[in-house]
Amino acid sequence: MTRSPPLPAAARGVIAKDRGALARLITSAERRDPAAASALRALYPRTGHAQIVGITGPLGVGKSSVINGLLHHLRSIGRTVGVVAVDPTSPFTGGSVLGDRVRLERDPSDAGVFIRSMANRGHAGGVALATREVTRLLDAFGFDVVLVETVGSGQADIEVRDIASTSVVVLVPHLGDEVQTLKAGLFEIADVFCVNKADLPGADLAAKDLRELVSLGPGPGGWKPRIVTASAREGQGIPELWNAIGAHERFLDETGVRADAERKQLAAELLALVTEMVEREVSSGLERDPRLRELLDRVARREVDPRSAAELLASRVRGRRAPGR
Amino acid sequence: MTRSPPLPAAARGVIAKDRGALARLITSAERRDPAAASALRALYPRTGHAQIVGITGPLGVGKSSVINGLLHHLRSIGRTVGVVAVDPTSPFTGGSVLGDRVRLERDPSDAGVFIRSMANRGHAGGVALATREVTRLLDAFGFDVVLVETVGSGQADIEVRDIASTSVVVLVPHLGDEVQTLKAGLFEIADVFCVNKADLPGADLAAKDLRELVSLGPGPGGWKPRIVTASAREGQGIPELWNAIGAHERFLDETGVRADAERKQLAAELLALVTEMVEREVSSGLERDPRLRELLDRVARREVDPRSAAELLASRVRGRRAPGR
Repeated sequence: MTRSPPLPAAARGVIAKDRGALARLITSAERRDPAAASALRALYPRTGHAQIVGITGPLGVGKSSVINGLLHHLRSIGRTVGVVAVDPTSPFTGGSVLGDRVRLERDPSDAGVFIRSMANRGHAGGVALATREVTRLLDAFGFDVVLVETVGSGQADIEVRDIASTSVVVLVPHLGDEVQTLKAGLFEIADVFCVNKADLPGADLAAKDLRELVSLGPGPGGWKPRIVTASAREGQGIPELWNAIGAHERFLDETGVRADAERKQLAAELLALVTEMVEREVSSGLERDPRLRELLDRVARREVDPRSAAELLASRVRGRRAPGR
Repeated sequence: MTRSPPLPAAARGVIAKDRGALARLITSAERRDPAAASALRALYPRTGHAQIVGITGPLGVGKSSVINGLLHHLRSIGRTVGVVAVDPTSPFTGGSVLGDRVRLERDPSDAGVFIRSMANRGHAGGVALATREVTRLLDAFGFDVVLVETVGSGQADIEVRDIASTSVVVLVPHLGDEVQTLKAGLFEIADVFCVNKADLPGADLAAKDLRELVSLGPGPGGWKPRIVTASAREGQGIPELWNAIGAHERFLDETGVRADAERKQLAAELLALVTEMVEREVSSGLERDPRLRELLDRVARREVDPRSAAELLASRVRGRRAPGR
């Protein structure tokens, strides 16, 4: 504190491996607090070393068991692990739907593990941004692997693809018809499929079906999704799953696909950040600025149509802090 | 065409009750085509007469059966009906998941009905905007009632609350644990609960549970959600459902809550429209503008952090078309 610190205190705490500082900064990022910006800025050059693995899939397929299995496997081979759970039903989140089903057997004194759950209520874009920043904080803190758990319904909720370098889609042999159809959307996300609960009847058939679907064509950059069967709760198939993830990571490096993928992720993030900023300005403007309130009244009276009003609003946002004015 | 038409052709078509013109304009709005703006502008003063009813709920509860039932009931009492279905679609088939299950028994020559399904692929915000504009087009065309069907998981997907004046949440007596919990989010949406498949065991219990939950407190403006049991496929409970919807509509008018609710919806729409505009500009900028591409490269090289880059981007968007420049 004496020599005019070059870094914000929060960033220094993270660099000094202070878990409390990490937790507080994560909370700040999650709340979309502008005050987190300076620490995030300071820590950004320290990121890019962790392997970010997304674990997604419909509700009830055992994503948490898979993460639990990976957590144990990774610790047993000496890797440190951060977990970000963006799933209202995850036992990692505490307030869990499946809370009683997956028992998390982890050593609370193990400094090689950090688990954080994100509230995924509210604005999906905001949660995605927060998740990305939290992942980055765990990366900067020095975890070797960051696992990001999201609920994937095949619809865009949080696009784990925009955050992780490898995305694992967890499925079970028999899903309801509807979920089965939603699975289609998950195909665009999956680098690795994990058919969990492989002890259930139909697991081999499900894996075979997936293999046929996968054989229809390679994914981005020529990668052909791997398919792994597992009984995560019994720990079966987890090393094989980790190997499949590793194969994809090597593919990313050897083909140069990683640089492209990262650039796309960053572009998506920048877009979301700009949107967040504009949304904030417009919301507060509509609440406080009398001229904007009057504009809204005119739309309500059907004197101005919404698209025209939005054009006016957009130009006002643009004008407010335009450079050179 | 001789006397310099005051209205765009598309708008004139809709006013002249040309269903083909309506369908084309809907497609244009759905594609977020800026060319639809002039017709939407011209038609906007003609909106506000239809009763917009949202029908939402988890997958598999029979929302389409309920809509089918309402459709028949409304036609039998002489009301014309537009339906906008925001169904999850398979990217492989482009078809509806529930397509084969509910047989829509409607007379294709009945000019009092218009059904349109929306692809809900891609950006949730874009789909919400499109759904709102399509609803408005059906309103301008002159339908008495517009039913908007969305999948509600309790998470924000498409917020039917932002579109409809009355929102019906359809549930079934027994949902899985997980869906049951997600239902909590649906509580904030529901003006009317419809417990469908009332012939299943547990229907009375489910209705009783709901009644207890509802008794915990009134919703916005003091409305206490109504609970209706139905067997939509057998047509049972549908007139009662329509009565409950009507009761909410009268509540909106008698208490003045309607004006407030509409203003909130419009504010949300304006915000989403501005966001859409900014997103378009930033996306195309990141693709085409060499300076923005260079900015992205610097972020990828970790020379600039994402939040700082987004600030720069936002100010550039603001500057580009600022008034008075």
